[in-house]
Amino acid sequence: MPSIKTEIRSGAYYDSVVLMQLQRSLADLPQVIDAGVVMGTKANKNLLDQTGLLVNEIKGAKADDLVIVVKAENEKAAQKALGQVDELIAARRSRDTGDQDFLPKSLESAVKMLPEAHWVLVSVPGRYAAGVSREALRLGKHVFLYSDNVSLEEEIDLKGKGAEKGLLVMGPDCGTAIINGIGLGFANQVRRGPIGMVAASGTGLQQVSVRIHQLGSGLTHALGTGGRDLSSQVGGITARMGLDLLDRDPDTKVIVLVSKPPDKETAINLLTYARGLKKPVVVNFIGHAVPLQWIDNIYFRTTFEDTAATAIRLATEGVLYSQKQDFALDQFKPGQKYLRGLFSGGTLAYEALLILEFYLPCVLSNVPINKENRLENSLVSEKHTIVDLGEDEFTVGRLHPMMDHELRIKRLEVDAADPETALILMDIVLGHGSHPDPAQELAPAIKAARDKAKKEGRYLEVVTILSGTDADPQGMASQEERLLEAGAKVFHSSDEGVRYAGRLVRDLEGDKIQVSAGSFTTVDLGTLTGDFAAINVGLESFTESLISQEVGAVQVDWKPAAGGDADLMALLEKMKG
Amino acid sequence: MPSIKTEIRSGAYYDSVVLMQLQRSLADLPQVIDAGVVMGTKANKNLLDQTGLLVNEIKGAKADDLVIVVKAENEKAAQKALGQVDELIAARRSRDTGDQDFLPKSLESAVKMLPEAHWVLVSVPGRYAAGVSREALRLGKHVFLYSDNVSLEEEIDLKGKGAEKGLLVMGPDCGTAIINGIGLGFANQVRRGPIGMVAASGTGLQQVSVRIHQLGSGLTHALGTGGRDLSSQVGGITARMGLDLLDRDPDTKVIVLVSKPPDKETAINLLTYARGLKKPVVVNFIGHAVPLQWIDNIYFRTTFEDTAATAIRLATEGVLYSQKQDFALDQFKPGQKYLRGLFSGGTLAYEALLILEFYLPCVLSNVPINKENRLENSLVSEKHTIVDLGEDEFTVGRLHPMMDHELRIKRLEVDAADPETALILMDIVLGHGSHPDPAQELAPAIKAARDKAKKEGRYLEVVTILSGTDADPQGMASQEERLLEAGAKVFHSSDEGVRYAGRLVRDLEGDKIQVSAGSFTTVDLGTLTGDFAAINVGLESFTESLISQEVGAVQVDWKPAAGGDADLMALLEKMKG
Repeated sequence: MPSIKTEIRSGAYYDSVVLMQLQRSLADLPQVIDAGVVMGTKANKNLLDQTGLLVNEIKGAKADDLVIVVKAENEKAAQKALGQVDELIAARRSRDTGDQDFLPKSLESAVKMLPEAHWVLVSVPGRYAAGVSREALRLGKHVFLYSDNVSLEEEIDLKGKGAEKGLLVMGPDCGTAIINGIGLGFANQVRRGPIGMVAASGTGLQQVSVRIHQLGSGLTHALGTGGRDLSSQVGGITARMGLDLLDRDPDTKVIVLVSKPPDKETAINLLTYARGLKKPVVVNFIGHAVPLQWIDNIYFRTTFEDTAATAIRLATEGVLYSQKQDFALDQFKPGQKYLRGLFSGGTLAYEALLILEFYLPCVLSNVPINKENRLENSLVSEKHTIVDLGEDEFTVGRLHPMMDHELRIKRLEVDAADPETALILMDIVLGHGSHPDPAQELAPAIKAARDKAKKEGRYLEVVTILSGTDADPQGMASQEERLLEAGAKVFHSSDEGVRYAGRLVRDLEGDKIQVSAGSFTTVDLGTLTGDFAAINVGLESFTESLISQEVGAVQVDWKPAAGGDADLMALLEKMKG
Repeated sequence: MPSIKTEIRSGAYYDSVVLMQLQRSLADLPQVIDAGVVMGTKANKNLLDQTGLLVNEIKGAKADDLVIVVKAENEKAAQKALGQVDELIAARRSRDTGDQDFLPKSLESAVKMLPEAHWVLVSVPGRYAAGVSREALRLGKHVFLYSDNVSLEEEIDLKGKGAEKGLLVMGPDCGTAIINGIGLGFANQVRRGPIGMVAASGTGLQQVSVRIHQLGSGLTHALGTGGRDLSSQVGGITARMGLDLLDRDPDTKVIVLVSKPPDKETAINLLTYARGLKKPVVVNFIGHAVPLQWIDNIYFRTTFEDTAATAIRLATEGVLYSQKQDFALDQFKPGQKYLRGLFSGGTLAYEALLILEFYLPCVLSNVPINKENRLENSLVSEKHTIVDLGEDEFTVGRLHPMMDHELRIKRLEVDAADPETALILMDIVLGHGSHPDPAQELAPAIKAARDKAKKEGRYLEVVTILSGTDADPQGMASQEERLLEAGAKVFHSSDEGVRYAGRLVRDLEGDKIQVSAGSFTTVDLGTLTGDFAAINVGLESFTESLISQEVGAVQVDWKPAAGGDADLMALLEKMKG
């Protein structure tokens, strides 16, 4: 009669590989039908249940208990198998040490054995991983933290310490990286080339890097950050350190940034930071698009394929769009700083708000994208404002602003007279139904507003988006001519007009790169460009993988201090400082 | 001494143009400094306040009161100007009728004058607009409803009636349309060509149509729907009727659909509907992207520029991607219908969920995009399931599924044995760190699962996404060969593999086009393709615009019934049925 025997080992630590091997060895023993060797988590107990191994004795096991179950043809065989557990573990251990003559027992002694190693790979179980990583940072090493099941608080603490010391903390749950051609964790063998990557997504990094290789190009470095790096709590600190590093790396010509949709504020800060870099950056927030294809040096893409292809094009062509900036900012009087958009087209106003989000921290509106940016009074502009004068509130008993310019001209006068206004943005939509000659009314108003500003020692930029076809009844050419004569800038693409306005006003604010949180000590460039060597704590296969890539690597024969007792471990860590 | 005199006319109705003209005429009178003629809304009173015209007498005016204010150099001049109001209005009225010999006083008599008119344009003030539109529908006419300030309830009622009768209700707040080359409302003069448009965005429609013209192509028709058509309450009924109409129009080769980001359920229904059409559809949900560039006949674009360019390419090339479907659906046994995705890569699982949203109504997961699609138990697949086996819950004391296939193979066995499973989707990620030979373990498991299904009279499709480079240590070619031998389909692009799986399972479900809400009577195609003629109720400039485009148009000399009394009007409408 089949019999099931079990054993629970509390607080015991074994490598996942050891557990896997032990389970297989037990299952291979004579008369054994099945075996399970797992940590006692809910998910694992459910798994045991599915295969009929969850007997009563182990139902109470805790997440950090090692659970061993053997099902055999009879009680004796089951008991015998269970008795062989330590022997099987010992056999596995002795085989492991075969490759490396001497396995250091601690990170400190490993560092002495391989002092040139800048990196420590950590893949011990989550509950021990932060401690090992902290020790690596203490020893001045960068951390590739593969382990998952590490708390957010630990991640924040580790990354804070790393940022202070100029050390990268890639992870936790960082599955992949490529440093100077060497793959850490899970990494494809990818050609060397001009593209560097920063990714908060393991398989995202792998997919893009594989595609870059398939399309004939290659990578300098690819830095994983861990999937939570771009959360609001962590704030993208590793991503920022990585971007800075790649920007300084002479071999990297183009940077790719990949992440699942990040926290919005973190994304804006990170993009602001990225826009201060010298190199083009291709951004893929997987499945989450932005309303524009580029801004400054940033190119937005939504698929892995497109991201890879764009990075390769940029590596060859340098830029994909003309991004000339020929503002004479010194024409403006100090204090002039605000953009005032007076729109007649609702969708044009909406598009302008979407685009300006990437240039200005806050634009108020009567049709805001987010409620908190609603103008207190639609009739009065404040700070940066986009007002849609075609909204229902303005059109009761009044013609639409595409037909009747009165409201817009009055508002132009008021906004232009405001000494803090630098730029007025207006759409002028031609076509049937619209005013038969907008320039006749708007051009003199624009000229008067600019003249008045000039008299008062200010410079007023008026940017118009002239939308229409050459066949429209108003005569596109004549409209444009008169607007230009009045001193307005004229754009035919709404997108371009809004970008121009956004760039000018942003540059006027002076602080182009203003990242609200998280400064860091820059990372030594030699970390990437020097010879790679690493110390591995955890999965031995990572050491084997490094050795197969012909780089220096030392495996630590790690076991949790104090036999894995959490309180004692915390105390020991405190003593080390 | 300057003096301000005012008058309030309650319940009086005047055309917005009349009010604008009256204000200008008053302001032009001798000794008059400024004048205001507005409906007594809060916004308008604020505006009067800004120019110093909001005196106490008119502060209590209501939204449907006409407010007249005159500021003159002295009391006498102000009083005199106010006395001339009726005279000025009469002068304006007599001038208006100059073009048209006889202005019908009602929609009914206008229809008798111009029976060939299929269309009624409505631009009377919002509070009257629904009533006029309802009458137009009663008379069997399509409605172009320019008026804003029309309630959502009225919109739902009008569109319901229109759908029943096969009549389009474009609006409310529909600024623009082009029917057979004729512009209604605000519309640019655009070349005729192979592209038809449906747009819930006025300036969005104008921007795309202008760009299509500039790029050398042109439009058949462009149908506005009003900005709220794609809200959850309205459900996109006009958009759907428009898409159907353009799909049947022989001159339209490509359809463009433009909207601000719609309600999610409405969007999914509308896209499902669009995928049942014979023609390619380019979709631009302004500023809101989807994670894929195309699905079936739908192409997603995020900018106006890109939307126009893609439509033009499609008009020439027909399709932009190969969309072959060569499933032998009859291999499957009745009852086989579910997709089960067993992933090792977190981002690949996430990408699969994003893409499958467009193929399948609901996919459950342990890493769902929306919480409501969370698997009750991560260990047990239900219906369509994507499970990420690399999630923290699975990796306590256990190797990552890229290294250890045990969990995946067990799950494969269970899911493959489920008689409702039709397709297993798996990613296999090669590279350093991953299992040294995934095919060695996975190929036999796949073969066994397929063989077992076959024995039980089922057909099991196994789709693998094989991700890696030709330089990866596992040997890409040999991996692929063994997977193929085991009967798996092999894709190298994750996107393609997921699409293939999604299409197959969707087609297996049988009901490709299943739109949950809103059926309608199809609109007679002659509405678009016949000679255009229209009756205009409201802004006279719209009649003038139609006449300048050389089409039949009659202006109705409209005034609200019952002197604008809301209760009486409702009663009258009821009596008409």
